[in-house]
Amino acid sequence: MEKQIVKKVRDSVPLIHCITNYVTVLDVANMLLAAGGSPIMADGLHEVEDITSICRGLVINLGTLNERTVDSMAAAGSRAAKLGHPIVLDPVGAGASKFRTDTSRRLVSELPCTVIRGNVSEIKAIAGDVGSDGQSGNTQGVDADWRDAVTEENLDQMCRFVKSYSKRTHAVIAMTGAIDLVADDQRVFIIRNGHPMMAKITGTGCMLDAVLAAYICANPDNVLEAAAAAVAAEGLCGELAYANVKAEGSGLGSFRMHLIDGMSKLDDDRLLGGMRIEIR
Amino acid sequence: MEKQIVKKVRDSVPLIHCITNYVTVLDVANMLLAAGGSPIMADGLHEVEDITSICRGLVINLGTLNERTVDSMAAAGSRAAKLGHPIVLDPVGAGASKFRTDTSRRLVSELPCTVIRGNVSEIKAIAGDVGSDGQSGNTQGVDADWRDAVTEENLDQMCRFVKSYSKRTHAVIAMTGAIDLVADDQRVFIIRNGHPMMAKITGTGCMLDAVLAAYICANPDNVLEAAAAAVAAEGLCGELAYANVKAEGSGLGSFRMHLIDGMSKLDDDRLLGGMRIEIR
Amino acid sequence: MEKQIVKKVRDSVPLIHCITNYVTVLDVANMLLAAGGSPIMADGLHEVEDITSICRGLVINLGTLNERTVDSMAAAGSRAAKLGHPIVLDPVGAGASKFRTDTSRRLVSELPCTVIRGNVSEIKAIAGDVGSDGQSGNTQGVDADWRDAVTEENLDQMCRFVKSYSKRTHAVIAMTGAIDLVADDQRVFIIRNGHPMMAKITGTGCMLDAVLAAYICANPDNVLEAAAAAVAAEGLCGELAYANVKAEGSGLGSFRMHLIDGMSKLDDDRLLGGMRIEIR
Repeated sequence: MEKQIVKKVRDSVPLIHCITNYVTVLDVANMLLAAGGSPIMADGLHEVEDITSICRGLVINLGTLNERTVDSMAAAGSRAAKLGHPIVLDPVGAGASKFRTDTSRRLVSELPCTVIRGNVSEIKAIAGDVGSDGQSGNTQGVDADWRDAVTEENLDQMCRFVKSYSKRTHAVIAMTGAIDLVADDQRVFIIRNGHPMMAKITGTGCMLDAVLAAYICANPDNVLEAAAAAVAAEGLCGELAYANVKAEGSGLGSFRMHLIDGMSKLDDDRLLGGMRIEIR
Repeated sequence: MEKQIVKKVRDSVPLIHCITNYVTVLDVANMLLAAGGSPIMADGLHEVEDITSICRGLVINLGTLNERTVDSMAAAGSRAAKLGHPIVLDPVGAGASKFRTDTSRRLVSELPCTVIRGNVSEIKAIAGDVGSDGQSGNTQGVDADWRDAVTEENLDQMCRFVKSYSKRTHAVIAMTGAIDLVADDQRVFIIRNGHPMMAKITGTGCMLDAVLAAYICANPDNVLEAAAAAVAAEGLCGELAYANVKAEGSGLGSFRMHLIDGMSKLDDDRLLGGMRIEIR
Repeated sequence: MEKQIVKKVRDSVPLIHCITNYVTVLDVANMLLAAGGSPIMADGLHEVEDITSICRGLVINLGTLNERTVDSMAAAGSRAAKLGHPIVLDPVGAGASKFRTDTSRRLVSELPCTVIRGNVSEIKAIAGDVGSDGQSGNTQGVDADWRDAVTEENLDQMCRFVKSYSKRTHAVIAMTGAIDLVADDQRVFIIRNGHPMMAKITGTGCMLDAVLAAYICANPDNVLEAAAAAVAAEGLCGELAYANVKAEGSGLGSFRMHLIDGMSKLDDDRLLGGMRIEIR
């Protein structure tokens, strides 16, 4: 793993255009700042192309998708593509409504996404069916046994799936959960950082989208490693936050604060010392 | 009071569809998670019916009502009604603008609300006038003496009012303030938990909407008790948060964090030990 | 400086209508409460005039401007103007997109703004060019040396600029950065409170908008001093928050909490003892 990924983020302060949801947007902006980047949130159709043009990367997160913002996402994404900016797409809730599934698939097909980040259910929903061989198809059936989580038991199958989906989309796939997989069509980084408490606050996924964009913008020559480092970084901050909560006897409100504290203090030494990554 | 209300929430993790405002939505999601539920925020007209269908309860909060979301609220509410899902309606700011008052009244008349939660002014605004006998009517006059607060002096009158309004709407009425009243047409739970500092941060009411929905979904056989328990639970967390702030010499930023910490650590023993409820 | 500026805010609890952005709105509401005011956030075109009418001041912040809210801003501003309410305008991101620059200029020309608050780039973008004499014109050229910051070296030039822009707009200009300038056409308050960490969390500017409105509403006879006091107050809270973070060894998540804690504990003695203001 490259030894200056975090330093490059902090030195270059990448400006990221985020079209994200109104639930977690405050934490997304603060987490991006804590990671060393700089946020601009803008989703008005009259200006998204202007805003994207002055930024270095784009996050599109479907968390509170509505009729108005779909067009803004498409317009910003198209402009970012023309400019060669990295695009991180988060199909939040794909599979939960037809509107989200259709919009996610449309964006994946229209835009040259650099990273697609989601949980297992979301990635599955936009990829279509996944057979036991890990290949994607178009049918509706889904094996329930791998539906909700990547486990040690189905790890090989899931690795084949994300590699296959990366090959099809030409994007790095970041499929996050108890075990995180970050893959291109050749390699999968299996990341075992993080803590279950991260799933008990809202927005850890949305925050990660912005951190991913910052890490990739600052490390353009090694997108796969930078993406894996971003995922490991937030997971490590989750571990540190939990340690603080346990020591204090506090709770979820404190956890969220400590998570951002951790990111704001992260450097390459801490990250390299704390990351737990296996490559397959 | 049922002895496992909190446990039932934590065991069943009810998924709640929240159409709420963009001011407090982050704290609403985090408070709902801390209480043991799980949030989905979605207000796009193209998807609210899909989203409601996969959830167990619906919160409709008018905090930042706009032209676009009114139709989404009506559509989601109508679907939830068909599915028999509990609906919590919060007419935030009813009485402050004609748009909010009219929309609140429309939703109350169209939807079979399970709980209507608001402060005295909001409940009054949607109920119409309240005479000295506690009966509601349609005239505009309002007695100023009971307008802003439930007090020990006007308690009997206010109890008659909420029972009467519950009878008219077939909803549990949760009228919150320094003293909280939770009533159906037969009984009023008078709750004396809480701390004045709760009114000095934004969103305690909005957070309560989501906690109410989770408690009711997890305790469907006893909606009135579950609603009262939810109100007492958040009030108790406010007391604990204040105790922390006082001990630290901190302030309102810390109070908000401690409030969510408290909810995330709440169990039935703490709740039953701390609730101060009188039934009339 | 008037000795009871803070007390007058806390005694009168000014109700402020905020049309602001969905990124920082939660912190804006909580900061306004901490400062002693009371927030109403509302941007629906059907109700903004009603809401403005029951408030004492209006904040218009362009942080996440979209097509829908522009009309609401104009309508609320026009109503506030008729009622003689103070208006604080924050042209967030003016210069970053044509849509924002145009909308900012339109609002400045249509509304009798009491305070225009922005960073150097934003104020410059809506004012047009600034020559070496500090006079504004309409050309596009900009001296790069003063573009990003007010410094001790360009201070005289910048003071002339803000006075000149105040003369042109009849508004108090609050141009904030490492050194803050608050000016009418006669005097500039040069404020050297604050800490660089304030720029590493989102929303310190947006929060200041609301604090400005509260301070001005509660001190209508001395708008310039009240505005300067508001800017100094938040800067001082930033210094106190940094001291806490340093003592704890914490980070940006904690900084944000301490910032609001500080405002909630501020009184006139602390403010007068801590403010660092020079008048030119």
